Amino acid sequence: MVVVMKDKVSEQAIEQVIAKLKELGFGIHRSTGVSKTIIGAIGDKTSFDAADIEMMDGVERVMVISEPYKLASRTFRAENTKIKIKKIEIGGEDIVVMAGPCSVENKEQIFKCAEIVKKAGCPILRGGAFKPRTSPYSFQGLGEEGLKMMRDAADREGLLVVTEVMDRSQIAMISKYADILQVGTRNMSNFTFLKDLGQIQKPVILKRGMSATYKEWIMAAEYILAGGNDQVILCERGIRTFEDYTRNTLDIAAIPIIQKLSHLPIITDPSHGTGRRDKVIPMARASVAAGCHGLMVEVHPDPDHALSDGGQTLFPQQLLEMMKQIQGIAQAVGKRIPVYS
Amino acid sequence: MVVVMKDKVSEQAIEQVIAKLKELGFGIHRSTGVSKTIIGAIGDKTSFDAADIEMMDGVERVMVISEPYKLASRTFRAENTKIKIKKIEIGGEDIVVMAGPCSVENKEQIFKCAEIVKKAGCPILRGGAFKPRTSPYSFQGLGEEGLKMMRDAADREGLLVVTEVMDRSQIAMISKYADILQVGTRNMSNFTFLKDLGQIQKPVILKRGMSATYKEWIMAAEYILAGGNDQVILCERGIRTFEDYTRNTLDIAAIPIIQKLSHLPIITDPSHGTGRRDKVIPMARASVAAGCHGLMVEVHPDPDHALSDGGQTLFPQQLLEMMKQIQGIAQAVGKRIPVYS
Amino acid sequence: MVVVMKDKVSEQAIEQVIAKLKELGFGIHRSTGVSKTIIGAIGDKTSFDAADIEMMDGVERVMVISEPYKLASRTFRAENTKIKIKKIEIGGEDIVVMAGPCSVENKEQIFKCAEIVKKAGCPILRGGAFKPRTSPYSFQGLGEEGLKMMRDAADREGLLVVTEVMDRSQIAMISKYADILQVGTRNMSNFTFLKDLGQIQKPVILKRGMSATYKEWIMAAEYILAGGNDQVILCERGIRTFEDYTRNTLDIAAIPIIQKLSHLPIITDPSHGTGRRDKVIPMARASVAAGCHGLMVEVHPDPDHALSDGGQTLFPQQLLEMMKQIQGIAQAVGKRIPVYS
Amino acid sequence: MVVVMKDKVSEQAIEQVIAKLKELGFGIHRSTGVSKTIIGAIGDKTSFDAADIEMMDGVERVMVISEPYKLASRTFRAENTKIKIKKIEIGGEDIVVMAGPCSVENKEQIFKCAEIVKKAGCPILRGGAFKPRTSPYSFQGLGEEGLKMMRDAADREGLLVVTEVMDRSQIAMISKYADILQVGTRNMSNFTFLKDLGQIQKPVILKRGMSATYKEWIMAAEYILAGGNDQVILCERGIRTFEDYTRNTLDIAAIPIIQKLSHLPIITDPSHGTGRRDKVIPMARASVAAGCHGLMVEVHPDPDHALSDGGQTLFPQQLLEMMKQIQGIAQAVGKRIPVYS
Repeated sequence: MVVVMKDKVSEQAIEQVIAKLKELGFGIHRSTGVSKTIIGAIGDKTSFDAADIEMMDGVERVMVISEPYKLASRTFRAENTKIKIKKIEIGGEDIVVMAGPCSVENKEQIFKCAEIVKKAGCPILRGGAFKPRTSPYSFQGLGEEGLKMMRDAADREGLLVVTEVMDRSQIAMISKYADILQVGTRNMSNFTFLKDLGQIQKPVILKRGMSATYKEWIMAAEYILAGGNDQVILCERGIRTFEDYTRNTLDIAAIPIIQKLSHLPIITDPSHGTGRRDKVIPMARASVAAGCHGLMVEVHPDPDHALSDGGQTLFPQQLLEMMKQIQGIAQAVGKRIPVYS
Repeated sequence: MVVVMKDKVSEQAIEQVIAKLKELGFGIHRSTGVSKTIIGAIGDKTSFDAADIEMMDGVERVMVISEPYKLASRTFRAENTKIKIKKIEIGGEDIVVMAGPCSVENKEQIFKCAEIVKKAGCPILRGGAFKPRTSPYSFQGLGEEGLKMMRDAADREGLLVVTEVMDRSQIAMISKYADILQVGTRNMSNFTFLKDLGQIQKPVILKRGMSATYKEWIMAAEYILAGGNDQVILCERGIRTFEDYTRNTLDIAAIPIIQKLSHLPIITDPSHGTGRRDKVIPMARASVAAGCHGLMVEVHPDPDHALSDGGQTLFPQQLLEMMKQIQGIAQAVGKRIPVYS
Repeated sequence: MVVVMKDKVSEQAIEQVIAKLKELGFGIHRSTGVSKTIIGAIGDKTSFDAADIEMMDGVERVMVISEPYKLASRTFRAENTKIKIKKIEIGGEDIVVMAGPCSVENKEQIFKCAEIVKKAGCPILRGGAFKPRTSPYSFQGLGEEGLKMMRDAADREGLLVVTEVMDRSQIAMISKYADILQVGTRNMSNFTFLKDLGQIQKPVILKRGMSATYKEWIMAAEYILAGGNDQVILCERGIRTFEDYTRNTLDIAAIPIIQKLSHLPIITDPSHGTGRRDKVIPMARASVAAGCHGLMVEVHPDPDHALSDGGQTLFPQQLLEMMKQIQGIAQAVGKRIPVYS
Repeated sequence: MVVVMKDKVSEQAIEQVIAKLKELGFGIHRSTGVSKTIIGAIGDKTSFDAADIEMMDGVERVMVISEPYKLASRTFRAENTKIKIKKIEIGGEDIVVMAGPCSVENKEQIFKCAEIVKKAGCPILRGGAFKPRTSPYSFQGLGEEGLKMMRDAADREGLLVVTEVMDRSQIAMISKYADILQVGTRNMSNFTFLKDLGQIQKPVILKRGMSATYKEWIMAAEYILAGGNDQVILCERGIRTFEDYTRNTLDIAAIPIIQKLSHLPIITDPSHGTGRRDKVIPMARASVAAGCHGLMVEVHPDPDHALSDGGQTLFPQQLLEMMKQIQGIAQAVGKRIPVYS
């Protein structure tokens, strides 16, 4: 941390800042310039708030140097984290596609979805059983009953299951049915919940908060890693911007940047990232071109009658088309999309 | 809802949209213009997603007319909701100030805080026992032990207690100590949690999400009201903007606008809303001038040594100064700030 | 500027950075820590781009310490700049209200407006003659003819005139009619134009860009000051946020913050800042409570038939009401609103 | 336009709205429902402000149906606009890459740049002669002298020239040297200037405003088209978001969406779009994968000593690498990158 003192500040003010920094456990390196005194605070402290120093008498600015996260950082671990689940590996050269409906609606629908997903060569079935809709009056999901159906459907086709978990009380129950747990955008900063997820040994997909920065997102992953669960996959799902034509703005640059800052795998969700079915394929192509480790998309046998998010859900034929188009891109960037059958 | 069809669209496409709308339970009013056909969908449906209609063949645009919330809306209830807790009333002519430290740190600190708050004439003591810090390595609060201390401190001074509740598992326990429960900005869209809060009979302060719109915020309140708890107080605490000089941008316009859209009380938090101690008083004045029902501010006997948020915390003397300054403003806008002693 | 080198970086990389900084004219202060080397670059350079250093081999982060503006900063000039125009003074204890229509529409309308403005006790008539509408097909203003009308109307009532200037080619002409020139939000970063405005000796109201930070806004003022024109008034007019209920979000905190960072006067425009007539008065009250030096509002004898911005324009009666309400607030904060008659 | 009246509104209020709409030239279609009356306003009016209707007594909401732009819309012109300049065509199957330094610095530098650009197979040399820097104290460009050098350098290599024009006074002069004029992000909403550009017959690259929506951006193009110049190329260059790791967030979804809404060509600028040299190649790949018509990137023989924007500028070797990588992507999406030699 570097503390810049105001011009012509009293020696007393400087000494108070130094005393406070020492109290916090920092080593001190004072540099007295012609007009400004700069205090370097050396040490690896994470549990203090820079604003507390900033408000002290005579302080002009405080600049924090160390990244606030450790375990999630590329500095801590130079090689990519590769998460293996049965025959799947996320974080390496393979591009792993997860597909399925927004919500599990009934047995027939989810079995049909699993068939479609399998036919397209995707290894993982996604689907929601607890649906945190903006309105309390909207369809809220089938709950555990839906999870059972999804597990059965996936098993029949030899697929893995990923589904969203909403709070601590659901972790154990959902873990019985799912291979990967997903944390939704609205829960990215729900730190008590993230701590709970650090206590389990299941892979977790952590979606980016709707207006979270990269740093905040990686810090959220740090909460899970700090608890002992190191199987975290980051999922870019679009950020809120002024644009109202799309539901969100999919931040493709997150793909190379997260890979620079962290060793964790990064995938994208072009369905939520655009909110528009006709933009899913181009954004899937762009994601693969930028180097993502996987994709998560919505597909439904009959999107016009989906109980939720139909407008951003692919028709089965479109999923096939998407898989075909991204194959070419994957080759061009030296990645591969294994076809699981 | 109004569905605008594209120019020169086929009759078949129009009929499919009409069929879908009927299926959803809407009454239909079709208006065939020279170039465009417009379909009015009449009825008070809240459980569907407009994007599903928008993606149908031939549809150019869908415009939702009804507000998605009901119980929270000013239309549903014309008079202000007034929340009475012992001698306090929030939502009427009184301006109610809640003050206290960011975190309960120890017995001495919270007792000193309660004294300061009482001396300033504020009726409610605020303070956190569970601290959802951005970093897992920061001070995370004293937990239930802290709540006991805060209750004792408040009781000695005849104050009420407001504190943050982080998830379902804490509701019953915290309710034993607190008169008002607070939902933090990071939990505003945690819908399963909001449902739980609808089941209790305690007043809830619902902070605005960091980048939530008014509509989303009121919808979150709707979740609590729909469960049967109608004692919800909305708290504007600043939204995220491009400005990085302040921690957040306190949206003062929310005060008159929320009062137009909803009957619920609206207060502001100028401490989090600016993140800077020296901006708290001017923003408290502005909030009162704009017509708020209350304020929530941070105060500490020794802000320079506060364990969290010290930079935005008032010195005791500043709280007295704030109370004095807002008295004059309150009179000018026909409100009053009772002094509780 | 402080340059933080990466952990375990080579001596050669450090020396290259030092060489580059010397080349740019900085004095160097090197501090070699256990894991990190930090290089302090001393000197008051403003013409370089920190990103250029940041991309050099071995550099982890660059932190710029000096504010990029000088003439506009509170450090450069401790006392408030007070701008005197005839009997008016902006920047001191008086709150100066500027009112008038969005556009000059015809002789009768602007004369009626001037009467209303005078009757309300406001000393300055505002009005647009060149209207930069979002659509090329909207009413674009009366041009110089409109300026003549506005000058005549103002003279009859003893008012000053403020109007927007759109580009260099209009400066001389508009200066003939107006006492104050206004730079619109869309031109805040039009640096060649700002340079031109530095060459004249008229007060300039510089509106904040729609998503500009305080620093960018003050830098824009610096362009005018650097040219030799030190009569700049900053006008907060709302920033773009995710909220779509209002046209913009009026950032009231800008009032105390700008006064901390700069010596220039700061006013607000609650008409554009909200886009809604019924929110203008509460936001005018809040602005005065927060300590602004003036207000700019839209008023029209018949807002329902205004050619532009009618929805945010006050009725004449509302302007009188606003003046009455802010009188009380002004007294409470130790300011005064002189009534010019 | 659809006007929704409030519940239980008086007949008189409805009639006043109808009268106002008729006055504006709309045909009226009234629909009286059980609780709400809806008024359809039919006709192709672009010169009115919906907010004016919204503020009338009894009006609950106004929804504008028609897009505000015409000439720029895909509805107006179904086929892609293809802009031909000598051997180049922008808007068809070819991907056209424009490269060069941020600023022309001296003769040697720009001749070296032209060589690099030619060697990489790019047909267009970019470079700035007038630099609108955020600080008035930064390097402001070589002016006309720089343009001459750039023209000479381009001619020697058989390249076209694109450069930024800052205001009306520069149009004629710059047109002598450049094949394509560029409007910067800060001028996107400078409507008087856009009108001037409608009067010339040169292709114009219109960069997206820093926080402009798609609609606002296309409306800006409409200003140029409405003047008679139909050679407009839209350039996505990143929008401002909360992320501060990158200078901007390149909105890749703009590529397919602009092509849906408009017939104009769309290119991206991954240099400004990220502000970081090491992110330019992945974002160039993503742009091509999403279907762009071209790219604009910064390259310099010695980026570490560039006078501006060095941190986002490619090394010559990186430009070659980028061209190689996007070739593979282009093939995968059925486009081609002609090599001009």
